[in-house]
Formats: sequence, C-alpha cells, structure tokens
Amino acid sequence: MRLRHKPWAREKIEAYPQYIVPKPEDHKGDWKQVFNNDNPLYIEVGTGKGQFVTEMAKAHPDVNFLGIELYESVIVTALDRLIEAELPNVKLLNVDAKNLDQYFAKGDVSRVYLNFSDPWPKKRHEKRRLTYRSFLKLYEDIMPDGGEVHFKTDNQGLFEYSLKSFSAYGMLLTFLSLDLHKSDYEGNIMTEYEEKFSQRGQRIYRVEAQFRS
Amino acid sequence: MRLRHKPWAREKIEAYPQYIVPKPEDHKGDWKQVFNNDNPLYIEVGTGKGQFVTEMAKAHPDVNFLGIELYESVIVTALDRLIEAELPNVKLLNVDAKNLDQYFAKGDVSRVYLNFSDPWPKKRHEKRRLTYRSFLKLYEDIMPDGGEVHFKTDNQGLFEYSLKSFSAYGMLLTFLSLDLHKSDYEGNIMTEYEEKFSQRGQRIYRVEAQFRS
Ligand SMILES: C[S@@+](CC[C@H](N)C(=O)[O-])C[C@H]1O[C@@H](n2cnc3c(N)ncnc32)[C@H](O)[C@@H]1O
Ligand SMILES: C[S@@+](CC[C@H](N)C(=O)[O-])C[C@H]1O[C@@H](n2cnc3c(N)ncnc32)[C@H](O)[C@@H]1O
Repeated sequence: MRLRHKPWAREKIEAYPQYIVPKPEDHKGDWKQVFNNDNPLYIEVGTGKGQFVTEMAKAHPDVNFLGIELYESVIVTALDRLIEAELPNVKLLNVDAKNLDQYFAKGDVSRVYLNFSDPWPKKRHEKRRLTYRSFLKLYEDIMPDGGEVHFKTDNQGLFEYSLKSFSAYGMLLTFLSLDLHKSDYEGNIMTEYEEKFSQRGQRIYRVEAQFRS
Repeated sequence: MRLRHKPWAREKIEAYPQYIVPKPEDHKGDWKQVFNNDNPLYIEVGTGKGQFVTEMAKAHPDVNFLGIELYESVIVTALDRLIEAELPNVKLLNVDAKNLDQYFAKGDVSRVYLNFSDPWPKKRHEKRRLTYRSFLKLYEDIMPDGGEVHFKTDNQGLFEYSLKSFSAYGMLLTFLSLDLHKSDYEGNIMTEYEEKFSQRGQRIYRVEAQFRS
C-alpha cells in the first residue's frame, strides 16, 4: 500500500465519530451499545479502502461490521465510502491490530476477516504477518469458542504460511479453495486488491479456519 | 489409469518373489527380515508403474522402499523397472491399501507417500480417496507416533479435500507447496503422472502432514 501524506486526515477522521469510533477501548465488552442492537459483530483486520466491509454491510444488514485500519491516509478513503453509503451497520477503527485485546473482550467479535494482508515475505518479519501465532491468539481471545478466521489472498507464499500456521495452532480448516474465482463459492464480495490482482490473472486463495474449543 | 487385461501378469508376478513379496501378511511386525537390515521402511501407496519408488531407492540407499499397487496389469510394469534396476532396497506389494493393517504392525512403516492418487471426485466415492479418514487411521496405525504422510498431486479438488481431511484428523502441516516445480524444494523425484501433467502446464501441489502424538 503506497502511503501518501495527508495532513488533513486526522481532522477529517475526528469529524466523523459516527463512522470512525473515537475511543474503542471504552467499548470493550459492550459493542452492542455502539450499534444499538444484538447482532453479531464481524471485523476485517487491515481494511484498506473499505470496499469489502461496506459491500458486506449492504449484503448482510443483520450483521455489524468493523473495518480496522492502521493508516490515517488509507482509512480516510474508507471513510468516504461510509459517508456515501449511509449504512447503520458498519464502522471503522483507526488502530493497530496488535492491540485488538485492548478494544475487545472475549466473545465481542463473532468472526475475523483477513483480506490480502501484507505478505511480509522475509523470515525476520514473520511476526508481523496477520496470521502469525500471536495474532491468532488475539483473534481467539476476542471471539467465542469455535470462532472463525476467513482469509483470502493472491499471495501464494503467505497462503502456504498461513495454512501451516493455522494447523500448528490446532485450528480446523472448514473451507478451502485454491482458485476462488473458478470455484462454486457463492456470495463472494471483492476487495480492492482482489479486483486488481484477479484482473491480472492471479489466482485467489481462500480459507476458513476455526478455533477448536 | 487405463487397465489392459494381461492374462500372463499373475504368472510373471509369481516368478519374481524377490521383487513382489508373495505373502506380505507373513512379515507383519518383521519387515527388517525381508530387507535383511535395520533401515527405515517408506511405502508408496498406489505406486502405478513404479518410477517414483525405483528412483527414490536409487537416491536413498539407506532407506527401504515398498511400492503398493492393486492392479496386476499395472504392477508388472513396475516389476520390469525393478528387474532392470537390480536394487536391494525396493520391493512391491500387489495388494489393496485398505488392508494395510494386515501386512504391517505399529511402527513397521516410517513414512507413507501418496502420489497422484485417484481423485474420486464424486462425493459418494469419498471413502475411496486415499486421504479419507479411514485411510489416515490405517497409516497412523502402522507408523510410529509422529509419522508423516507426503502427498503430491496435480488435482486441485483432491488436494483441497486432503488438506481439510488432514486438518480434521488433527494432523500438523509441516511442509506445503502450492506450485512445487516453481518452489525451492530440492531433491524432488518425479512420478509418471507428474511428468505428464507438469508437461501440460499443470501445477503440482505437495504437502507433508504429520500425525500428532
Ligand atoms: C494490502 S492491504 C489490503 C487492503 C484490503 N483488505 C484489500 O483487500 O483490498 C493491507 C492493509 O492492512 C493494513 N494493515 C496491515 N497491518 C495492520 C495492522 N497491524 N493493523 C491494522 N491495519 C493493518 C495496511 O495498512 C493495509 O491498508
Ligand atoms: C493415478 S495412479 C498414479 C500412479 C503413480 N503414483 C504416479 O504418480 O504416476 C494411482 C494408482 O493407485 C492405485 N491404487 C488406487 N487405489 C489403490 C488401493 N486402494 N490400493 C492399492 N493401489 C491403489 C491405482 O491402481 C493406480 O495405479
């Protein structure tokens, strides 16, 4: 993700507290209040420009969505989408996923989506991959027992790594496609990266992995 | 595998007891005697025409190999290879893999290879797939704790199924390549099917899965 410096980004983020939740730590254990209903909460970690969470929220009005994105300069584009879409069931968090346990208590989150996560191909950066075991531990700790991680990517190396990491963590693979766009999987919602890479003829890999209780 | 009726096959098989072990049930718990040494025993289930076991035996003189093939009309070609190669550390079994526990006791086998196994794509034939849970149980029961299954195929559907099956069985994925011939995996020995399918530009998938002790 190329980052452009956008000095006005912070100000814009603060101007839309209804879309970018200002103090997420205040809602730990009580996210139902933020959405004013009892629906399950699905989060996308590394949301980028927000196409996936926005379209998912349109397609699934009975689910609440939170897109989590570290960079201000990126999340402002996702914010523009949310302002445009005017949906009650999708919001954003401008935080680092490595602190997820500061914002969510056990069971707050019903599903975790990872889409086209940064590959960090160098072995010395393994700990930064969003499917490294310390991240899996974070996801496990904020979902109920039997929670699921749904992951898709075009990156072969990251996908191979992630399947091994899920397996080493003792997770169960409940869905697997090694060529999503040629599979009979229905209801796929494309991310920005997915559109870009599939147009170039890259295969898309997808897996659902479940924590064992 | 197209099967041609070869009425002379049985007779030829019986003429080479040094290569096609005649009564494998007699050696259950005592395969060291068959090879006259203490080396580990690796088996290939569904050996076909025997290129893999023969070349593996050449490359690894300190390992004993057994190729297991159900069909007489196919195993005779593997037999020709063995007659030609004159190796002390590779033999064949003309038996059905579903009876592996009749021929091997716990710990007799140190590794199981599956190469380009028949895909049996129809759901009602799931039980025939060599990575179905009942086959995994057989492999587990003839290896020491922590034994490994090494599997490669060009068949995407069978590979997806197998990864899920290994995962459901609680096995650990210790190696994974979604494009073996473009990976840095060294020492690969090609099977007949692998040569054919990779020449057609098909990707080869490969996994090593370990039973947990
Ligand atoms: C390659 S982009 C993919 C964006 C989008 N999911 C898609 O598929 O189009 C990955 C995004 O994840 C974000 N990201 C990476 N690590 C993160 C972390 N630890 N916390 C929050 N966001 C992160 C990056 O800033 C980037 O915007
Ligand atoms: C598709 S061929 C692949 C042959 C070889 N491994 C290769 O890669 O070139 C699969 C082989 O497995 C054998 N086979 C299938 N099921 C078997 C079973 N239950 N027991 C023994 N052999 C079996 C078939 O007869 C066939 O020769």
